[in-house]
Amino acid sequence: MEVDFSKIRVIGFDADDTLWVNETYFREAEEEFTSLLEHYETKNKIDQELFRTEINNLDLYGYGIKSFTLSMIESALDLSNNKVSQTTLSKILDLGKRMIAHPVELLDDVEEVLRTLSEKYRLIVLTKGDLLDQERKLERSGLSRYFHHVEVLSDKKELNYKNLLDHLEIDIEEFLMVGNSLKSDILPILALGAKAVHVPFHTTWAHEEVDPDSHENNHLTVNGIKELLQYL
Amino acid sequence: MEVDFSKIRVIGFDADDTLWVNETYFREAEEEFTSLLEHYETKNKIDQELFRTEINNLDLYGYGIKSFTLSMIESALDLSNNKVSQTTLSKILDLGKRMIAHPVELLDDVEEVLRTLSEKYRLIVLTKGDLLDQERKLERSGLSRYFHHVEVLSDKKELNYKNLLDHLEIDIEEFLMVGNSLKSDILPILALGAKAVHVPFHTTWAHEEVDPDSHENNHLTVNGIKELLQYL
Repeated sequence: MEVDFSKIRVIGFDADDTLWVNETYFREAEEEFTSLLEHYETKNKIDQELFRTEINNLDLYGYGIKSFTLSMIESALDLSNNKVSQTTLSKILDLGKRMIAHPVELLDDVEEVLRTLSEKYRLIVLTKGDLLDQERKLERSGLSRYFHHVEVLSDKKELNYKNLLDHLEIDIEEFLMVGNSLKSDILPILALGAKAVHVPFHTTWAHEEVDPDSHENNHLTVNGIKELLQYL
Repeated sequence: MEVDFSKIRVIGFDADDTLWVNETYFREAEEEFTSLLEHYETKNKIDQELFRTEINNLDLYGYGIKSFTLSMIESALDLSNNKVSQTTLSKILDLGKRMIAHPVELLDDVEEVLRTLSEKYRLIVLTKGDLLDQERKLERSGLSRYFHHVEVLSDKKELNYKNLLDHLEIDIEEFLMVGNSLKSDILPILALGAKAVHVPFHTTWAHEEVDPDSHENNHLTVNGIKELLQYL
């Protein structure tokens, strides 16, 4: 699909799974959680129950590792009919802490792409989730210097983006969003009339998945972030 | 103390315990937590252990109810030598959820003061803690309409304020901060050379307490938020 980037002046980057690895650690944590509870239920049932609990808690807890940890504890109690051992619950707390403390692993070519684009465009980070987590990851990533602004949103719906672009006084015609999630990074941006480039990550959380037919294909999809340099 | 407010154009308000009740609910939750664990330790020891755990986890978890809930679970396991019942742990999860869902209770005169000041000044909310929690409380408070901008900070140290004032292009001479915490709302602001008004709340979390001699008395303290209208 041909997309006209000639008016773009500001580029927003999603962070988790666009600049650095994130979902992979959640999947690994889910594996560990399943192993801890394998006496009580099948792997499939444990996965389903944890996901159901996360979605039930999403309005109350929001996104991020602390929310995930609380949902793991709740699921462990539910799945085991309150029989899960206190030692296992301690291990779940530790698992959450290890996730928070995990080093940041940049995705391929990210630094080169940001360095190049930052010479011609104003770059901003637009991420959702836990404020402290995201600030910490950005600091550890060493990428802060390329960004004019960092905004952590409680969610990434059309209204969240609209309010932010208004606040930052960014003209919709001049804005391009780059991210791995069709649901959070691409569709709400296209609905606003701005432009978007989809950089798929190999793993997508079920909650972020959308029916491929639910959106018109009026954005660009690239195979890796470095391809951006062919267009911008 | 005489403070010159003649240049002020922008007023930043802390939210928790300045606009609405917050610390009270944490204290009530601590009481409930203590009752749940009274078989294992004295009230005093339980309080101390919970506080110690919260402070140990502060760098990792940050502020807010989810962090507090995770610290309650960890303390319950520690205090009971892993003997706390799974039912009690479920109750602690529920206690955290009730705190998040708690209705917002405005402090006296807040709406009148904001309505009046919003006619002459640009008002902003500067709060720390959990992004989703704080956005939700502001929405439920019905006070959003009085504010030009809302910023949730991961912490309220001098550098956090400096970056924010730079980003919002607010001149330090024109900025006044109003809040209940000397440590978070007043001292870092005075260190920047801006002005501050302290509106004490009857309860202060131990972590927010400062030695009264540790700061020079170069800010105004009022007995209630309505007194602001005498000066502004």
